[in-house]
Order: sequence, then structure tokens, then C-alpha cells
Amino acid sequence: MINFALFTDFYQLAMMQGYFFEKKDEVAIFDVYFRKHPSGGAYALFCGLNEVIDYIQNLKFQDSDLEYLRGLNYFRDEFLDYLKGFKFNGDIYAVDEGSIVFAYEPLIRVKANILEAQFLETAILNIINFQTLIATKASRITTSTNKPVMEFGLRRSQGKSAGFYGAKAAFVGGCVGTSNVEAAKNFDIPVLGTHSHSWVQSFDSELDSFRAYARQYKKNTLLLIDTYDTLNSGIKNAIIVFKELQNDNLKPVGVRIDSGDLEYLSKEVRKNLDEAGFEDASIIVSGDLDEHTIERLEKSDSKIDSYGVGTKLITSFDSPSLGGVYKLSGIMKGDKILPKIKISNDPRKINNPGLKQIYRFYDKDTNKAIADLISLDDEKFDDFQSLEIFHPLYTYKRKKITNFYTKPLLKPVFKDGNFVGVKKSVKEIANFAKEEKNSMWDEYLRNLKPQTYKVDLSQKLWEIKEKLINSHKF
Amino acid sequence: MINFALFTDFYQLAMMQGYFFEKKDEVAIFDVYFRKHPSGGAYALFCGLNEVIDYIQNLKFQDSDLEYLRGLNYFRDEFLDYLKGFKFNGDIYAVDEGSIVFAYEPLIRVKANILEAQFLETAILNIINFQTLIATKASRITTSTNKPVMEFGLRRSQGKSAGFYGAKAAFVGGCVGTSNVEAAKNFDIPVLGTHSHSWVQSFDSELDSFRAYARQYKKNTLLLIDTYDTLNSGIKNAIIVFKELQNDNLKPVGVRIDSGDLEYLSKEVRKNLDEAGFEDASIIVSGDLDEHTIERLEKSDSKIDSYGVGTKLITSFDSPSLGGVYKLSGIMKGDKILPKIKISNDPRKINNPGLKQIYRFYDKDTNKAIADLISLDDEKFDDFQSLEIFHPLYTYKRKKITNFYTKPLLKPVFKDGNFVGVKKSVKEIANFAKEEKNSMWDEYLRNLKPQTYKVDLSQKLWEIKEKLINSHKF
Repeated sequence: MINFALFTDFYQLAMMQGYFFEKKDEVAIFDVYFRKHPSGGAYALFCGLNEVIDYIQNLKFQDSDLEYLRGLNYFRDEFLDYLKGFKFNGDIYAVDEGSIVFAYEPLIRVKANILEAQFLETAILNIINFQTLIATKASRITTSTNKPVMEFGLRRSQGKSAGFYGAKAAFVGGCVGTSNVEAAKNFDIPVLGTHSHSWVQSFDSELDSFRAYARQYKKNTLLLIDTYDTLNSGIKNAIIVFKELQNDNLKPVGVRIDSGDLEYLSKEVRKNLDEAGFEDASIIVSGDLDEHTIERLEKSDSKIDSYGVGTKLITSFDSPSLGGVYKLSGIMKGDKILPKIKISNDPRKINNPGLKQIYRFYDKDTNKAIADLISLDDEKFDDFQSLEIFHPLYTYKRKKITNFYTKPLLKPVFKDGNFVGVKKSVKEIANFAKEEKNSMWDEYLRNLKPQTYKVDLSQKLWEIKEKLINSHKF
Repeated sequence: MINFALFTDFYQLAMMQGYFFEKKDEVAIFDVYFRKHPSGGAYALFCGLNEVIDYIQNLKFQDSDLEYLRGLNYFRDEFLDYLKGFKFNGDIYAVDEGSIVFAYEPLIRVKANILEAQFLETAILNIINFQTLIATKASRITTSTNKPVMEFGLRRSQGKSAGFYGAKAAFVGGCVGTSNVEAAKNFDIPVLGTHSHSWVQSFDSELDSFRAYARQYKKNTLLLIDTYDTLNSGIKNAIIVFKELQNDNLKPVGVRIDSGDLEYLSKEVRKNLDEAGFEDASIIVSGDLDEHTIERLEKSDSKIDSYGVGTKLITSFDSPSLGGVYKLSGIMKGDKILPKIKISNDPRKINNPGLKQIYRFYDKDTNKAIADLISLDDEKFDDFQSLEIFHPLYTYKRKKITNFYTKPLLKPVFKDGNFVGVKKSVKEIANFAKEEKNSMWDEYLRNLKPQTYKVDLSQKLWEIKEKLINSHKF
């Protein structure tokens, strides 16, 4: 089992010890949310919940962890004894994994003893920030084409677990498979790949190398044709070998091009293949692709059947971090919630206080999402005939919505420390993500200059927030 | 133990099976190198070798791995039996971990049976690409100030292992410690941290929260003062508590500012602290810092004692991938090396063929590095009185060097599959990295518009490369 207990920042332990001696029994509410959609988009695809569940269920301090902490001469024995028996006993609500989500929405809501709630921060943020980032990037990339996109980034991912969970997130975001064998095995997703330039170079000639590959893989023959010269050598040798396969009544899969002008090369290669009678042979391209290069290739006359994407996807190259935060929004005083706020000169940095829910409003005719409302946990809107919603900062921006039904997005995952949610397979999550994308108008999913989806606050939540801001004394 | 066998791209296994049935006993030479220095710099700090060694020493297919591969209906039993007993039996040379290195230099050289050599590609690249990237970024950031820099990025790192190995690489690159408890424990590096905004918010007032912290941590009291208002509230409350500590004959550590105009705020906070008699209290700043913001703060009148750096360091935000590659450079034909090349329209993408060494030339008087020469493995230059080196592409660019001594950079790590190197602790690697930086003129280490360090080819290597390029037949 992976050691999870020290998967944390030191200050969480320092604060926990402080809470332990100052107010051991307090119950706190924390929200996970981000403030900015990655890559200039207008949405994110929520990913990583399964691993958050694993983390919480397997959280246990080992003797060697406690020994290490003791050796730092920073922690007192009474607190270390508490850590020895540490487990999570609180409540967690979360949005379903694979959901389309927006800035400022509480994606995970933790209500627990303040020591336990505080401790979860680092690991939850690490997991959710990365997987949501990559699922979103994959969604952007796969939105830019109707053709299959494969994830090939392991060698450029930021470490082993980035490659592993990145492959999962890429599949959730719409990729059809991965080159990462460990991820494919563990998440039960398709694994793909054929050969690299070194295969070709290791033989005395390119033709020899292609013949050897075809000898070994027969009907699975897919040849990389850009080791020396795509048009003067690669495609010509590939066709020689494809014809030899044909003589044995075998049909080749196709070719891959990994460099050069992919629009021009794909057209020329297609011409060569068609003239030789291989109309069914596929052309796969790869090489530093992202949503923008693919969008351009799709709008051109390129003849491409599928894409392999590496670095730009697995690192979310143009936007390599989702700035998800974990903010205190309330402290329980008996049965009552004392809402908490962090003041900032930047109004967008002031958090939403209290115990909250998100409602998504759908149009009854189209079943498309209209807007989200962040409300207090106990509000309901389904009985309303119409509702005027308003922008939380620029309150003159108002919109009246009618003919709607709502769905609450936050659902119970842990109750008193027990898992009460439903753990979905990665394939189920990916299917759900597709449904989610179908429930959104294209304007919001567009990669360049998308429309902003409305995420407003309920009147009640807005009033509590205003009151807290205005009454704040230092 | 971590499962390493499936930490690979599928095509490595596909090629291995192909080699297994086509040319099981061939010996190949592969080089690891990158083509572009990250973040617009002129160097990189080589990092990750310890983990490459771990990987190779612990590489073993588990039964469940083989079962998974068998289930794909892609691999034949004879090959799967071979994988069952798979281990690395070849030779590896590598540059010392913590070395300053440059584009195109072979950082790791693998000479082994072609199946074994091919198989190492993905994991080696994943490890070296990420750790070298982060060590380089940390070196850039710590070069921008003489003050201590701490690594705080775990919540924004791309997954768990990115945070873990990123903390190591950041320390190698010059950081003084990390917030990551697991990394600190495992790599024996200092761990740091105090409290976050939620500590402050969870109390009825900021002053209460500071008092509670001081009560718990006494002489270790370092207070985060920007939860509500740094100047009107934070620093004032901090000074009240610092005076209370003083009354108990305790000296506070200082304050941390995590947002706002750090130049202005640090000056005002310093003034407040000094006027209250806390000239020794430190000011630590954090919040989206990188080498450029720190350089600017250092050139200003800011009053900052140390820096905490998160997202921009742990993701190498402006340059989130080092494009390291693993290229075939030769095939053994008996005792002779058949050098191999990959042709490209871009001359910078043509690899250097053969079995190679890197020599670093040092000036005998200053002991500073003058230039590197990539040569054939069996060349020596120490007996030369003078040597004319030349640019490998623009050969008219020539430079005569004299009064030098040389050091070979590639050293044996594995011989016939046995580890023959020296495994250094992370602290030793970090110390070595400091020596390495001292051996370089500042011009090469500069963050903005650095001078390019000369990395040339020996005459013999250049001739072999030219001959291969000119004689290449498809």
C-alpha cells in the first residue's frame, strides 16, 4: 500500500497540533474550488474523486512516520499518540467525477473535526488539481476533432504518477486509449502503440525494418514512415511491404507520421496509398500536437484518420497548473453554522461562506444546462415557476429563467467517515463526461473565446456574504 | 516495492517482441539527451540518476503483469517467458547527478542487448526529463537571490510523485528545504512550514489566532499576516503577540506575507517591526513567485529575508517539459560499432552517432569551465598543448584553447548489469551542484539572455557524422 500519511505539507501537521491543544473538538467546513478555467477555456472537467476516496480510506500513520515526526522535536507525545489512531470520521460531499464544472463552485465539501478536515487539504488539492487539469485539456483536444485521439505522453509527464493518473484523466476527457501500459492495466482502458524510429534505424535499411515488422505483426502492421524521409523513402517502402502483406491476403493497418508539415505530408501519403490500392490504410499523425494544431489540421485538406498527443496533453503545457484551493467556509457552533470568510482586496478572492450546494438548471425542452446557482445547503428551487438570477459581483446583470428543472451537483461521499458514495469505473466516468458535454451548448465548450456560463449565488447566500464583508472587524 | 515493469509505453514491448524473434542477440547503443535548455536558459542541472538506478535494479515483471500482457492477445508465449526472467545485463555510463549539462550532450549512454536497451527508454526519460527540469528551474530561482528559498509546491504539483521527486530536485537545485513531509523524510532534507489562512479564520479574531499559535509554538512563532489586511490588522496583531512573547523572554521568528505588493508591504512591515524593537524578526514572502519576480524584488528596496516558492517551481510553469530523447546511436557488429543516425530536414535533429564521451575543458588558472567536447569514447585530449574547436553546424566558428585540463563527464554506472557507480545522498548531490555552478562563469548561468556555452564535436566524431549524412541511402 502507498504511504499516504506524509503526503502532506508540514504546516498541516503544525496546525493540527495547534488545534489539538487549543480546540480539539471543533467542527469545520472546507470547500475545494478553483478560480480560473485552464487554457483560456470556460469550463473544467472534474476528475480525481476516486483517488481522493482511496486516499481517505487508506490514510494511516505508520510507526516509521511517527518516529520521523518525533525526531523533528516539534511535536508533543500526546499529539503523536493521537496521530497513531488517526482516521477520517467526517462528512464529504462532492460533485460526480466526470462532471462539467465552473470556477468558484465547491467541488468537494468537507465537514469534519477541524484536525481531520485541515489534514486532507494537501492531498485532495494535489489529486484534484492535476487530474481535473488533464481531463480538461483532453476534453479541449478531443473537442477539436471527431477523430480518435490517443494519449502518448508518459516520457514527458512530470513523474511516474503524473503519467499514470494523467492517462486516466485523458481517457475521462475523451481520449480513446493510452500508450501507458501500467495505466491501461489498472484503469482497464485500451493500450496502443507500434514502433519508434529506433526500430527502423536498428536494421540495415528502412525496407528491412518494415519487412521485419510486418513479418512479426502481420495484420497489425502500422509503420512509422518519417525516420529518414517520409515521401521519398518512408511511404514508398511502406507500400512495398503492404503489397507483400496483400499477397498473403493480409490487410495492413496504416502508417504514422511523427514530424514535418502534417497537412502536406498526410495529403501526399494518402495519394500514394490510394494509388497503390490501400484506401483503407489509416494515417495517424503525432508530434507536439495540441487542440489548436489539431483544429487547424481539421479545417485544412489534411487526410488524417487519428491523432497521437503527448507532451502538450500530459503536462497541460500552456496552463500547467489548476489553482484549486481549499478554504475554510464555516465553523460549527453547536448545531449552528458560523460562516467564515477570507477578505481580500480582490473581490474575486473572497470565498463564499457557509455550507453550500450547487444546483444546475436545465431547460425542460432542450435538456441543456442554463445556469448554475450556488446556494445554501438547504435551499430548493424546483417549485419555482421562474427565478431571477444575478451576477454575484455586478448585480445589475440579471436574467429571468423559466421552464426549468434542477439537479443538485454535490452528493454524499462520506458520512461519519464511512464511504457512502458510488465508485465508478474509469470507463463509466468517461461515458458520464460525454453525457455532461452533451448537456452543454457548444458555446461554452469552445476552445477559443468561449461564452461564459452563468454561475450565480442564491439570494440568501449572497446576503450572508455581503453582511459578512460589511461587518468584518479585524 | 513499486511495480516498475509496466512503467513503459506499449510500443517498447511491441518492439521487444519484434527484436526477440528477429535478432535476439544484437547489442545496441542508445543516448539520452535534450535539444533545448528550459525556460530560455543556457544550461540544465542533471537530476534523477539515483531513481534511474533504483528503476533498473528493481525491474521485474510480476505474474499479474504477464497475465495482463497475455490477455491482450498480442504477445507470444515464448516472448512472455523471456519477460518472466527479464533483467538488465548491460553497461550504462552517466554524467554525475547534480552536473551542469548542455543540449545535445549524451547524459546517459546505454550499451546493452537491444531488447534490454530499448525497454529502458520510457522510464529513464520520464525520470530524467522531470527531475532535470525542476532542478534547473530551482537553480534559476535560487540564482536570482542570495537569500534562502523554500519549496512549497506539493498542492500544485502534477501528482504525488511530481511533488515527491520535485522536492528532491528543488533541493538539488539550491532550495534550502521543502514543505513536503514525505520527501523530507525520504531524502533527509529540511522540512518547513507554520500555518495557513484557515488557522486564522477558524478563531473568533486574528489576534486570538496569533495568540493561540504563540501559546503553542513559543520561540517558533512565525505568523501569516495577510488573512484580512496586512498593514491595518496583520502586522499590528503580530506585534502585540510578539511583545507578549518578549514579556516571557521569548523571541519570535517573524512573519509571512502571501499576497499583495510584496515590495511595498515588506518595507512597511519591516518599519513596523523595527519600530517595535523586533529588528531580528524575519519577513518571509510567498505567492506565485518565480526567478523573474524574485530578481525584481531583489533589485528593489524590498525588505525580504526569505522566499517560499510553489506552483512556478514545482511545475516549471513557463517551460513544463524538458524534451529529453533516447536515440539509437549504434549497433554492435561483433567488436565493431556500426554508428547509426536519424536523418531530419532540421540539421539540429540529426543525432550524434557512435559510442561517445564528453570532455569538459577547464582553464588551468581560473579552474572555470571553457567548453565541452563530445568525442568518441576512446579519444583523449589532456596531452594537447592547444586545440582548435569548432561549431558542429557553422564550422567557420572556431576557437583555439590552451592552458587547459579536461575531465570526462560520463562515468560507469552499470557494468554487465551490475551497479558499479557511487550512489550519493541528496545532500551530497546538492553540494556537488553548488560546486558545479561555481565552476561556470556567471554569463552562462544568467536567467535572461545568457551567453551560450560551447559544446562542440571532436574532429573524429564530426567526420563520422558527416560521412554518414552524406552517404545515407534510403
